[in-house]
Amino acid sequence: MTVYSAPVKDMMFLFEHLKDNKNYNEIEKYKEVTSDLVKDILEEAAKINEEMLLPLAKAGDENPCVYENGVVRTPPGYKEAYSKFIEDGWVSLTCDPKYGGQGMPKTVSAFFDEMLSSSSLSFKLYSELSIGAYNCILSHATEEIKNTYLPKIVEGKWSGTMCLTEPQCGTDLGLIKTKAIKNENGTYNISGQKIFITSGDHDLTENIIHLVLARTQDAPKGTKGISLFLVPKYEINDDGSIGPRNGVNTVSIESKMGIKGSPACVLSFDDAKGYMIGPENKGLNSMFTMMNLERIVVGIQGLGLSETAYQTALSYSKERKQGKSNNNSNGETDLIIKHADIRRSLLNMKSIIEGERSFSATACNCLSIINTFASLCSKI
Amino acid sequence: MTVYSAPVKDMMFLFEHLKDNKNYNEIEKYKEVTSDLVKDILEEAAKINEEMLLPLAKAGDENPCVYENGVVRTPPGYKEAYSKFIEDGWVSLTCDPKYGGQGMPKTVSAFFDEMLSSSSLSFKLYSELSIGAYNCILSHATEEIKNTYLPKIVEGKWSGTMCLTEPQCGTDLGLIKTKAIKNENGTYNISGQKIFITSGDHDLTENIIHLVLARTQDAPKGTKGISLFLVPKYEINDDGSIGPRNGVNTVSIESKMGIKGSPACVLSFDDAKGYMIGPENKGLNSMFTMMNLERIVVGIQGLGLSETAYQTALSYSKERKQGKSNNNSNGETDLIIKHADIRRSLLNMKSIIEGERSFSATACNCLSIINTFASLCSKI
Repeated sequence: MTVYSAPVKDMMFLFEHLKDNKNYNEIEKYKEVTSDLVKDILEEAAKINEEMLLPLAKAGDENPCVYENGVVRTPPGYKEAYSKFIEDGWVSLTCDPKYGGQGMPKTVSAFFDEMLSSSSLSFKLYSELSIGAYNCILSHATEEIKNTYLPKIVEGKWSGTMCLTEPQCGTDLGLIKTKAIKNENGTYNISGQKIFITSGDHDLTENIIHLVLARTQDAPKGTKGISLFLVPKYEINDDGSIGPRNGVNTVSIESKMGIKGSPACVLSFDDAKGYMIGPENKGLNSMFTMMNLERIVVGIQGLGLSETAYQTALSYSKERKQGKSNNNSNGETDLIIKHADIRRSLLNMKSIIEGERSFSATACNCLSIINTFASLCSKI
Repeated sequence: MTVYSAPVKDMMFLFEHLKDNKNYNEIEKYKEVTSDLVKDILEEAAKINEEMLLPLAKAGDENPCVYENGVVRTPPGYKEAYSKFIEDGWVSLTCDPKYGGQGMPKTVSAFFDEMLSSSSLSFKLYSELSIGAYNCILSHATEEIKNTYLPKIVEGKWSGTMCLTEPQCGTDLGLIKTKAIKNENGTYNISGQKIFITSGDHDLTENIIHLVLARTQDAPKGTKGISLFLVPKYEINDDGSIGPRNGVNTVSIESKMGIKGSPACVLSFDDAKGYMIGPENKGLNSMFTMMNLERIVVGIQGLGLSETAYQTALSYSKERKQGKSNNNSNGETDLIIKHADIRRSLLNMKSIIEGERSFSATACNCLSIINTFASLCSKI
């Protein structure tokens, strides 16, 4: 049985250490993020992860996402959990208060991302890409786009995706074929197929905002001819309400070995209405805002899964009997935790995990500092 | 897509080499096993593996074994394939002609076992344990037991299992709790629970012959108090026909990541009628005949799976384009097989696989020789 109790004490130890940094302390907006506040947040986060989300991992693998009649249905319990999750404001943790966020530093979300990965990675993936999309739109889109999309994403009512891979191209993005034809009103019609799209379709949110790499007409070959487009699942009316269905369809979901509660979709774009984000032919640069963040968060996924594996192994070592240890005195079979090599394995796991946590929290703390100064610089 | 074509040419190269051995050539019964005969067998085996069994691997993972109302149902297509498999005599390949077998050396079955592991390991596991049970019974049981059970096992109408593990004990077999109470007529009543029993229940054969480790009353503690029992799923009438159901019940089947077409069962023995095999308290020694054979065959499973992985990777490397290789001349994206590091990976796989195949075929050839001389020695 999977065992997980969020390591809040270890996390607070790191937070205390990281916050004792000259550059970090100069950031005005984080002055109110005291240890007491962070501790309250992490303890509340621990509760929701241990009690509500942990059971969803198994539930999702036993009742995978289902694709039928063109739509993806999430596993039992996911809808209710997601409602509670966004109601309590967990998606908005690090987002800008201007768009309804709570303005926490990434240092704090590093710990929260770890907990989510530990308790149910499949559930986590529904909001993970939303935060990536939020950051990409925040950094590169026009004010109009930001005002239309960001508040709903921050609220968790709309989610995000990252549409790069196509059947003929994985990391070699120069091979992208998806086309963007410009309309007279400045929007684009996007057509092509994207694969392995995490949370590409599901029934948890009212809308899904796809960030799609595509080529405009006459774009240069290779990576220098790629632009980035925002393509909503449902178009947005002028008053901000949900409009008609856009030309994005789910073709299928991938078969997977694990995290079956999270759908990896094949999406077909057929003259879907899209809005260019950032400059033409510089789409890859803009997308890197999202990709770089995802790289850090995928690292944290590994950390979170390792922590659960460690806690589960430790618990099992205290109930499973096998053989006799070197220190055996009564001639009876010992619990396996008594064996030196089991202790060594467990301690090895524990020390690697603590190193990983320090490393990822430090990286996220640096990000908090760098992002703040970068945005200050851009205002000079 | 999984690609597999049996490497008959490589196997024949090894067979030619292995058969050129003084000890092997002295074995009278293998004189008729010529290269032509072996080639015919392997080519026929290739056909059945590539055409009939290969699709069963995917079918089994997509439609796993189902446990309902106390019985295990195999995936669609398994019953028909198993009927054809035993009709063509594949279970009996290395068995003694005295019991209906074809008397081939293990050198040949090493190749056949590899093909089965390559095409569909889940299908293979239904007969793999039968051969292990056959060898154990052949080496340690009374003539009466041999005459009752071996012909049906060789024919493939009955299958076998190996019942060691219990909830509280894995490899530390000294902890076994399953009990055997002696009846007045010399049979035993077996009671206890066994877990992880491959092919412990299914609907492919008329009967399942369990080889079970248990303790007689007042047996010494630890491994020195373990005896081996034959426990059939259905009792056998005096005329050899299937009698009433014995006290063996399937409690559940394990959830697995792969080979879902093969059930790993939890079995409950409740006063099940059993027959002691070999001497009392020496059960572990007898069981080692089966365990040692399984160890070799599990190695061959790895070889078989590696071969399919290699062939599938090789095929993919010839259709997938990515990046530009060092030798790129036309500026177009190259097939990945053009990249030096992909070629290195493929060649690394190929050379490890060829080494594994030589090693396992040599081990099985030694077994053919040793078993022959051992059985000659025991007659002196």
